[in-house]
Amino acid sequence: MKRDLKKIISQMTLEEKAGMCSGLDFWHLKSVERLGIPEVMVSDGPHGLRKQDDKGDHLGMNDSIKAVCFPPAALSACSFDRSLMEAMGETIGREAQANDVSVVLGPAVNIKRSPLCGRNFEYYSEDPYLAGEIAAAFINGVQSQHVGTSIKHFAANNQEYHRMSNSSEADERTLREIYFPAFETAVKKAQPYTFMCSYNQINGTFASENKWLLTDVLRNDWGFEGYVMSDWGAVNDRVKGLEAGLDLEMPGSNGTNDALIMEAVKNGTLKEEVLDQAVERILNIIYKYADHRAPQEFTMEKDHEEARRIAEESMVLLKNADQILPLKTSEKVAFVGGFAKKPRFQGGGSSHINCFKITNALEAVPADAQIIYAEGFPANKDLYDEKLAAEALQAAKAADKVVIFAGLPDSFESEGYDRSHMRLPECQNRLIGEILEVQPNTVIVLHNGSPVEMPWINNVKGILEAYLGGQAGGAAVANILYGIVNPSGKLAETIPVKLADNPSYLNFGGGDKVEYREGVFVGYRYYDTKQMEVAYPFGYGLSYTTFAYSNLQISNTNPTEKDTITVSVDVTNTGSIAGKEIVQLYVKDMTASTTRPEKELKGFEKVQLAPGETKTVTMELDKRSFAWYNTELHDWYAASGKYEILIGASSRDIRLSETIELSSSQVIPMHIHMNTTLGELFNNPDTKEAAKELTSRYLAAMNGGSDTASESAAEAITEEMVAAMTYSMPLRSLCSFGGFSRAEIQEMIDKLQAIYSNPLK
Amino acid sequence: MKRDLKKIISQMTLEEKAGMCSGLDFWHLKSVERLGIPEVMVSDGPHGLRKQDDKGDHLGMNDSIKAVCFPPAALSACSFDRSLMEAMGETIGREAQANDVSVVLGPAVNIKRSPLCGRNFEYYSEDPYLAGEIAAAFINGVQSQHVGTSIKHFAANNQEYHRMSNSSEADERTLREIYFPAFETAVKKAQPYTFMCSYNQINGTFASENKWLLTDVLRNDWGFEGYVMSDWGAVNDRVKGLEAGLDLEMPGSNGTNDALIMEAVKNGTLKEEVLDQAVERILNIIYKYADHRAPQEFTMEKDHEEARRIAEESMVLLKNADQILPLKTSEKVAFVGGFAKKPRFQGGGSSHINCFKITNALEAVPADAQIIYAEGFPANKDLYDEKLAAEALQAAKAADKVVIFAGLPDSFESEGYDRSHMRLPECQNRLIGEILEVQPNTVIVLHNGSPVEMPWINNVKGILEAYLGGQAGGAAVANILYGIVNPSGKLAETIPVKLADNPSYLNFGGGDKVEYREGVFVGYRYYDTKQMEVAYPFGYGLSYTTFAYSNLQISNTNPTEKDTITVSVDVTNTGSIAGKEIVQLYVKDMTASTTRPEKELKGFEKVQLAPGETKTVTMELDKRSFAWYNTELHDWYAASGKYEILIGASSRDIRLSETIELSSSQVIPMHIHMNTTLGELFNNPDTKEAAKELTSRYLAAMNGGSDTASESAAEAITEEMVAAMTYSMPLRSLCSFGGFSRAEIQEMIDKLQAIYSNPLK
Repeated sequence: MKRDLKKIISQMTLEEKAGMCSGLDFWHLKSVERLGIPEVMVSDGPHGLRKQDDKGDHLGMNDSIKAVCFPPAALSACSFDRSLMEAMGETIGREAQANDVSVVLGPAVNIKRSPLCGRNFEYYSEDPYLAGEIAAAFINGVQSQHVGTSIKHFAANNQEYHRMSNSSEADERTLREIYFPAFETAVKKAQPYTFMCSYNQINGTFASENKWLLTDVLRNDWGFEGYVMSDWGAVNDRVKGLEAGLDLEMPGSNGTNDALIMEAVKNGTLKEEVLDQAVERILNIIYKYADHRAPQEFTMEKDHEEARRIAEESMVLLKNADQILPLKTSEKVAFVGGFAKKPRFQGGGSSHINCFKITNALEAVPADAQIIYAEGFPANKDLYDEKLAAEALQAAKAADKVVIFAGLPDSFESEGYDRSHMRLPECQNRLIGEILEVQPNTVIVLHNGSPVEMPWINNVKGILEAYLGGQAGGAAVANILYGIVNPSGKLAETIPVKLADNPSYLNFGGGDKVEYREGVFVGYRYYDTKQMEVAYPFGYGLSYTTFAYSNLQISNTNPTEKDTITVSVDVTNTGSIAGKEIVQLYVKDMTASTTRPEKELKGFEKVQLAPGETKTVTMELDKRSFAWYNTELHDWYAASGKYEILIGASSRDIRLSETIELSSSQVIPMHIHMNTTLGELFNNPDTKEAAKELTSRYLAAMNGGSDTASESAAEAITEEMVAAMTYSMPLRSLCSFGGFSRAEIQEMIDKLQAIYSNPLK
Repeated sequence: MKRDLKKIISQMTLEEKAGMCSGLDFWHLKSVERLGIPEVMVSDGPHGLRKQDDKGDHLGMNDSIKAVCFPPAALSACSFDRSLMEAMGETIGREAQANDVSVVLGPAVNIKRSPLCGRNFEYYSEDPYLAGEIAAAFINGVQSQHVGTSIKHFAANNQEYHRMSNSSEADERTLREIYFPAFETAVKKAQPYTFMCSYNQINGTFASENKWLLTDVLRNDWGFEGYVMSDWGAVNDRVKGLEAGLDLEMPGSNGTNDALIMEAVKNGTLKEEVLDQAVERILNIIYKYADHRAPQEFTMEKDHEEARRIAEESMVLLKNADQILPLKTSEKVAFVGGFAKKPRFQGGGSSHINCFKITNALEAVPADAQIIYAEGFPANKDLYDEKLAAEALQAAKAADKVVIFAGLPDSFESEGYDRSHMRLPECQNRLIGEILEVQPNTVIVLHNGSPVEMPWINNVKGILEAYLGGQAGGAAVANILYGIVNPSGKLAETIPVKLADNPSYLNFGGGDKVEYREGVFVGYRYYDTKQMEVAYPFGYGLSYTTFAYSNLQISNTNPTEKDTITVSVDVTNTGSIAGKEIVQLYVKDMTASTTRPEKELKGFEKVQLAPGETKTVTMELDKRSFAWYNTELHDWYAASGKYEILIGASSRDIRLSETIELSSSQVIPMHIHMNTTLGELFNNPDTKEAAKELTSRYLAAMNGGSDTASESAAEAITEEMVAAMTYSMPLRSLCSFGGFSRAEIQEMIDKLQAIYSNPLK
């Protein structure tokens, strides 16, 4: 239905307009009955509905309706599967429609800067490309049901510590290359109905009142068309926020901030057009939902199966020595650990779902499986229990194989605070060690929202990273363990050997400020560039079958920055069972135009293959695939030169590669001045000759004739050394050495700048 | 002689005064005959005289007089011996007096931020405490001869790339804790006659015109009394420099800059007092030298022996498996590598000395030593020579043991440019590998100004890090190899496994700017805090004897920050030959008052011990030993709390430790505002009660009575979790949650701030 929003707004009182810019309560926007503006509801969350019909809160303290808990983002991202994520979005969208929820508060796409961030389980990846692709697919899925999303938390909200007040201090290149692209891709590929700004400050300005962020970047650079709401309680200065582009404050402030808006309009410090624009954006989305209400039926049981399928497609098999997996029903298997019976499958906080049903692994194994179960350790605290441990050791001894269901207790990771270390509870590591002494055939299943250190990594035979699997995660684990499902997830983040290896280790948390000193070197960008050992690399995951890569084809190996090129590769299932492989494309910049990570993910596809089957996987690259953000150009810059196209089964398992040479028409302007170095002149074809002349005059003046140089001096200093020394000399220094006058240098500079401004080529 | 400098200055013309502020030529200051101001000379350099009587230059291109080359700083710092450094200074001071040199241009105390810095061979250490102690001793030695020093390059000049134009971007805490203390200690313990400012910019301002650096920090904070000269050609804007505190420009600018000074005085943009003050500082130092002229006799032969002794006390034995060293004269030993005959013992550039004599290892071995010599590889380039290699292999096979004299060619490291990698020439690594295949009893002697990667580290039996040993270094090597001297040097820097491990790896070089993103985490401060494997740690070195540590005593384990405490430890020579041990004291901050390195060196002593002998080593600690630089206080801050005193034989070989508890009266002011977190209030005894009350009101409002919470929610969220979540909430957020009004919060803030301003305790 076409509506004249401007007309409606013109009929609203100032109070109604200010009121429209903040919540009625925790979850509802205000209605204006006389104008037919309906009351709509928004609800958490990113992996299922947390709809509170009674008392509201933003930390999972109070009741919500029964719903389906899908796998949290930390797991689902490991699917590397756009269509799977779109399906998950569709399903959640249908549930939202059925429950009259206008906007689902998600997805959460913040980059995993440190394994310690308490909310990592809600986030997709350490890689912005993967996070962006997955988020866009999810959003398209939800919004296909005419329900909105609220992509969050915009931006640079990568820790919980002091999250409502501290400032994320990061340079613009880092923000543009690492912390923004997931949001940018979502806008460009899926146009989310709403954005949720984050609690924190960015370089000293609250996200909720950051005009550069909410207007210049989000709307002007990327073209976002919806409204921006605050994270719950993120508003600091409401009027400043409105001016910056924050349309909706959530929840309300009991009228305090509405009054400030009205006062600002009345006293002229806030233009009423700014308020009107915010109201228009909000109404636009309210009607986008209300005009397309299509109440849905859904079966929670069916969605539960969907949740299981997503978990099965995402869990990551990390280790499978001696093909200890899959288990056979003919084997006597001990399941140790309370998570086998009562899995940890979601995290605490605003995304916490009141599940209608939970499936555990113990009940989901094949009917003829032979299982001995022992609790082993208390799942919700770090306490070594002699009796439980003794039972577990007994069971381990009696079995052919042991599967230990290890993981983090609820209290170890949650929205609202960060972890203080990266270890499993000591009681679990101790029991694992003890079991390994009596039973070498041991598999670990990990239940965790973020990586843990694995002191037993070399001693166990199998590791399944189940992350938090959603309410059907137990069934997914059972199906993978018993080979009913062939695992196909790959890591959406690096698992470092130890916490201290993480790039943010020296600069995490902070007080008033947290400095992102590692810059663009986040995740594998750091580990690979620093050539560090990791426990498991980004993009890594095993299958019960094997895959071969061949026939790398690149449509154009001499593209310009305006071309789109197609990369294809053949993948063959070389094993004896069906499986899925995630093919990854990384780009390595060889141009030396700036310091860049060793490689960056620029494409991926997941492909299903029957035994012996070969399929061709195709991916596209464009300028952005090669570019870095140049703050001088205020633009993405793909330098001319060579780039390696790397096709890998993981970030550290590159199977095929080829070099292309890009010709770019982008030019970084050169400014020649007193402190331009001779080296810079040498490196530019337009100024090279002048540099040669200056250098030879300088050297003649310095040497005073080479025949007078002593044998000692002549021996010690070669021509190459002089050249190297000369490269770093600024033009200014020719005054001190070699008898140039300052005026003479200035004349040369003017001449060079003129040549440069009118390049000969 | 007492002089009235102000009177002399009042008699000088403006032209004479401006002229006094720049060099007459490359090495001389100007005289004013009519006023009796003498012409004085300054000369390179830090480890021996490079006095140019003819054509001058600052890069070692032209001739200088014959002199003695002492071990460059990279080696001498490994002595960890203040009295040895003082003796070296005295010797160089005497040579300077004898040659009528008023100021020796050294020492160079820049911190080794990266192994790549081309000038590392001239610098002492990665540790500011060690660099400061060594520098002060050297300066005191030189200046005892009434010859000045010029400590350089002030400051943050840690690379050669674009050294004359780029900006070292470092936060103030990092500058104060890492890059400044060596200069600060020199001022406080040795008051150098002059300072030499560096070429580079610091945070966007040239060191040569940086008032904060040259006046606020250097003179006001530290009490420097001499004059500041420019590094050769470091002046950018002369008038700005003079105002900032740069007194003397070197060399002259052919009058250009003198004219600018005169013009600025004439047109009133520069106060004449500023010029007068600079002239006074310069004259003061000119007369300090001229009035104490005490022409010396010296014997170069005797000083050559002194150079040998310093090298012997400094070289570092890194590995000695199967006690392969010392060599015996009864053994047939192959010396492989041209450095055995023609050692590399100094670096290129301004410190390059025209040696009167050079001793190589081959000629210095005991008369009855059985040596087969083979050149093996060309010493000055990276070229594998089949014939030379074959000869070397032949010699290796024929011998009982092989000593390979490996190292970096001159062109690999020099003033003026940086290394591009950290490897030895490939031809050397290849030959070492080949020799190891035929001769397991292999020792490597390294000739290098900065660490190299050692791919053969686990396969050779012995490694002697000879660094650049000065002109008598060959004899020092021979004496150590044959056990005539027991090695006693320890590493003044970490040797990382590979270049990528270095903390500056991702941010070295730069273009216009180089960002010191690793902050205070330089050298072992980084490797230890990040728990990284290294090839050899800071402070490490072997002896032919062994030492035991016992009886750690601390005079006061509950000091205040005003106390000086004494730490003593007994060291026993438990071997059968005399030797020297370097005892190191590190402090580990346990207070958590900020992010600090795992440990920091705060004391060291070198002690000589006969076999079986025990001596007590005593070191003192004061506030500064515990403090970090707090930019809010603009002062050093030693937080109350626990500190570990660690006594080590190296940074990674801690033998004894004890914890002390410091009580500090320093208070960091607390400012309570809308974005102060509840956690911050909880952590302050004065505001804790208020925090409790606010929190309980907030929780009551949020929960709406715990009986309504669902089982699901109640299970997922524990009291500890709520507490953790609450800690990061700013007071402002109590408006959004829990029904506080903004006015109510402000009232509470005012009340709290009042309590805090008048603490109850």
